[in-house]
This record gives sequence, C-alpha cells and structure tokens, in this order.
Amino acid sequence: MSDSVQEIPFIRKLVVVGIGLIGGSFAAGLKNRGACEEVIGISRNPDQAKQAVELGVVDRAFTSLDEIATELTDEDVIFIAVPTLSVEKVLLDIHRCVTAKVTITDGASVKGNVFIAAQKIFGQMPSEFVLGHPIAGSEKSGVTAANPNLYENHRVILTPVESTSAQHLLRVTQLWEILGAEVLTMTVEDHDDVLAATSHLPHAIAYSLVDTLAHDIANPNIFRYAAGGFRDFTRIASSDPVMWHDIMKANKAAILRSLDLFTDNLQRMRSSIEKEDSDYLLEVFSRAKEARDEYTKMLKQ
Amino acid sequence: MSDSVQEIPFIRKLVVVGIGLIGGSFAAGLKNRGACEEVIGISRNPDQAKQAVELGVVDRAFTSLDEIATELTDEDVIFIAVPTLSVEKVLLDIHRCVTAKVTITDGASVKGNVFIAAQKIFGQMPSEFVLGHPIAGSEKSGVTAANPNLYENHRVILTPVESTSAQHLLRVTQLWEILGAEVLTMTVEDHDDVLAATSHLPHAIAYSLVDTLAHDIANPNIFRYAAGGFRDFTRIASSDPVMWHDIMKANKAAILRSLDLFTDNLQRMRSSIEKEDSDYLLEVFSRAKEARDEYTKMLKQ
Repeated sequence: MSDSVQEIPFIRKLVVVGIGLIGGSFAAGLKNRGACEEVIGISRNPDQAKQAVELGVVDRAFTSLDEIATELTDEDVIFIAVPTLSVEKVLLDIHRCVTAKVTITDGASVKGNVFIAAQKIFGQMPSEFVLGHPIAGSEKSGVTAANPNLYENHRVILTPVESTSAQHLLRVTQLWEILGAEVLTMTVEDHDDVLAATSHLPHAIAYSLVDTLAHDIANPNIFRYAAGGFRDFTRIASSDPVMWHDIMKANKAAILRSLDLFTDNLQRMRSSIEKEDSDYLLEVFSRAKEARDEYTKMLKQ
Repeated sequence: MSDSVQEIPFIRKLVVVGIGLIGGSFAAGLKNRGACEEVIGISRNPDQAKQAVELGVVDRAFTSLDEIATELTDEDVIFIAVPTLSVEKVLLDIHRCVTAKVTITDGASVKGNVFIAAQKIFGQMPSEFVLGHPIAGSEKSGVTAANPNLYENHRVILTPVESTSAQHLLRVTQLWEILGAEVLTMTVEDHDDVLAATSHLPHAIAYSLVDTLAHDIANPNIFRYAAGGFRDFTRIASSDPVMWHDIMKANKAAILRSLDLFTDNLQRMRSSIEKEDSDYLLEVFSRAKEARDEYTKMLKQ
C-alpha cells in the first residue's frame, strides 16, 4: 500500500454490515464496478444473508462478523449500514474481534451518537473510523431494494473529526466517488443540525400529519379524496419505522430545537389565517416559492 | 335540446373565465376533443387573452364577459376558473350581463364561500349553477401551463345543492368525463372539510416548514444539504401564492379545525421524542406506513 494520499488505495475485502437498502446498494455498486477483490455481507438475519448472495449483492455472506474477522487485513474496509442506534453494537463486535487496522466507515443518519459510542468503546475515536452519511433515502427497504446505482448524483456527507487520518478519509471518499456520489465534509455538529432541520423534522411532520388524518379526523373517507399535496406527505411517511425511531432518539436535541422553531412559525401562520392577515400570508407564500426556486437552481448546479 | 337526462346535451359555446392552468386546461381539453362548437376565453389580462388564442387554447378571447354576453343562449356553458375569492366578482358579472339560462360551473378550491356568494348575488342558488372542484393541482400556473390532458384520470368533486337541476349537473359531469376525469359528488360541507384536511392543511404546513428553514434557522447553508424529504415539501410550497391566500381565507374555519388537530398530534410526538417513548414513536411510524399502504392500494383501484 502506498503512503501517498494521492493514489487510490487498493481494497482487498469490503465487509458490509447490514445488507438492507443502504448497505446492499453500497455493496452491489462497488461489486459491479470491480472496486474490490471481494465483497462480504454480514446480516443477523440468515435469510437476508442468503438472499444477498443469491441476488449477487455480495460474494459471500455471514450472520456474524466473528466468522471472517481473522481474514481481515489493513487493506480492507468495513461499512456499517445498520440503523443509527445499532451502530454501537457493531462497533463492539469490531473492537472485540477485528485486530487489523481496517478502514471503518458508516452510513447512519445521525453522527453525534456514533461519535460518542466509538469514543466510549475504543477509548478514543480511532483514526481509521470515518463517520459518514449518504443522503439517499427511499421509501423502499431491505436487500431486495438494493440498487448498485442508488448513490449516483447523490450527496454523501463525511464528518471527519480531529483524530481521523487523512489516508482513511481519502479511501472512503474515493469509494463514494466510484459510486458516482458527490462527497461533502462538515463537522459532526453541523451535520446533525442541518439534517435535523432538512430531513428529521420533515419526517416527524409527515408522520404526524398522516397520523392526524388517519386517526384524529373523524371522516372515514378522508384518504379517498386525498389530493396531490397529501400524496407527497404519505410518501415521506412510509420509510422504515425502526430507522426513524432511532433517528428521533439519536438526534433528539437538534430535532426538538427545529421542531420548536417550526411550531412557532406554524402558530404565526395559524393566527394570520384566523385574523385574515393577507399581507403576512402572501409574504410567507411568496418567499416560500422564492426559496423553492433558489433551491431548485442550486440542485441543477 | 332533449328533455331526457340520459342524452349528452349539445353545447354550442363554452366560455372559460380565467385562462390559467385550470381554465386553460379545461378549454384546451374540450376544444381538442371537439366537445363544443366554440371555446371562448375571458381574461382581464389582454396579454394572456392574446396568448390563449395564439396557443390554440381557445378559439376567441376577450378581456370582459360583457363583450360576448349577448351571444350566449341556454345551450352554452360558463366555466369559472379564477382564484376562490375572485369567483364572486365573476358571478356579479354574469348576473349583470348574461340573460340566457347558461349552465354555470366553477373550479374553485373551496365551495362554501362560492355557495354563499351565489345566494347573495342571485337571491337564491341558481338551479343552473353546478359547484365543482377538479383535484388536479400543479406547481405550474398560467396559460402556458395549460394541458388538454391535465384532468385524465384525476378526480373532480361536484357539490350539487338542493336547488341544483339534474340536467345541468349531468351536463357538467359529462364535460369532465369527456376530459377523462372521474366525477364524485359530495356535500359542500364535506368537500370543504375533506379538502381542508387533505390539501389545505398540508399546504399550510409545507409553506410554514419552508419558511422556518429559510428564515428562522440560522444556517445559511441549510438548503444546500436538504435531503429528499424536504424536496417534496418545497414542491408543495411552490404553488401560486394568491390561490393559496384565497383558500386560507375562504376555508378558514375548516382549516383551523384541522390545523389544531395536527398541532395537538405534533405536540404528542414532540413529547414522545423528548421522553424517548419508543412505543409511541414506533406505533405512530408503523401505522403511518400502514395508512400509506392502504392509500396506495386505493389509488390503484
């Protein structure tokens, strides 16, 4: 392996722990592109492990990291793709059974809790652990939803900390770039704040709206006449419940902060509807349209 | 003209007042399908009137109903396609200058206020006025967005009242069916309640969320990292501001009722996030997914 950070480091084995949508797509994408000698999947669920091999998502699959831990060398990479609150358990497994200085990275939606868990387990944040988060959700889940091109033109946020080694950061960056993703870096704190506002809050709102319509409004036909706007909400609210439960717990402080700002804003809108304050309503509606137009422009850049 | 309600009534002239997305698509769709002898557009904006003719959306266009009012006979139809709060002005024009018993219908998003305005202007609800609402919004607006196939496979809700004549109701139903729409009927009150919950509330929430992110959260890069969930919200919040202002005013009572139910539900979710009440969160997230699955099944039927 070269010491130069300019060269693409050679990857022998890629181990993906959790072979659902996120992990399966990462595995299949790198396997299809011939980016590593071998792709190994780990899933606690024996059926999922079997299916991952049958679908060609991975070359081999096991139900526990222990079964291949001794095979691993410094030239290998472990990608942890389990729900946020389960990352800690995987880190415990790695700490217990992997002795090689393998590059470790993850795809969990919240980074602060993973950072804390890693420091607790390893004594300090390992230089070879690169915290990451691909911004590529989907209402689909499970290994059958794995898509080798899922990350093409999607953003991936890496949140290196002071102790993260440049070599391992580069390695992880290059893996994502091979998959066609655009890699951005920011601090752990900024990541969790930005995602709370732009992803976790919208999901909490969408879940709450669908729940309101399904249970609090006494009209049995309410879904029958649901218009376009509502369809988008239900799509957002159809993601994996366990994943979102974990996110709400792991990023609690930042989510509550965003939620309170939103509630205040919604109460201002409520009072302007009640008072028929046309100026306020037109101003909010117009600037939301402007914000949308700017956002769309940004996406095209 | 036959007295039988089974036969498709012959339509000589179709007059569409307001040639934006809704009116322009109605006009162009019926014109393309040869459903009437002539399609006439009315727009206060002379440029839009001119453009509607140039684009082939209508055969002729004028800036005021007065210019063609005396041409109209009992075999004609007027479709009012202006924002909810402007329907009253058009009804005043019709009352003032149209003497023939023309079939009148509209496409406004709220029906209660139109019903009240019509009773006020005409003394009682005219038997030839069929209140309607196509559920076919779009973030696009204006005559250039007119699409002759906009209503295909979309739902249209008609809200006939006691005085509405079956003959006129059938005529309007058939026009929508020619356009490929599925026509449903319900009461004015049910319409406004259902739409408040499934369309007006989601839009108020989406506008408020985009406004919160654009103005209340102190992160200049917030839109840069916005994830998928947020993209759906911004799309909802990019509809025509004046149309939505009108809706919030016209359907105020029902919207406030839904908004309060939603706010209560969101506060329950806030408190469950704060208390890390996993049972509550998993239950809400799971049943939202179920509701979505049922809704999707319903759409496919």
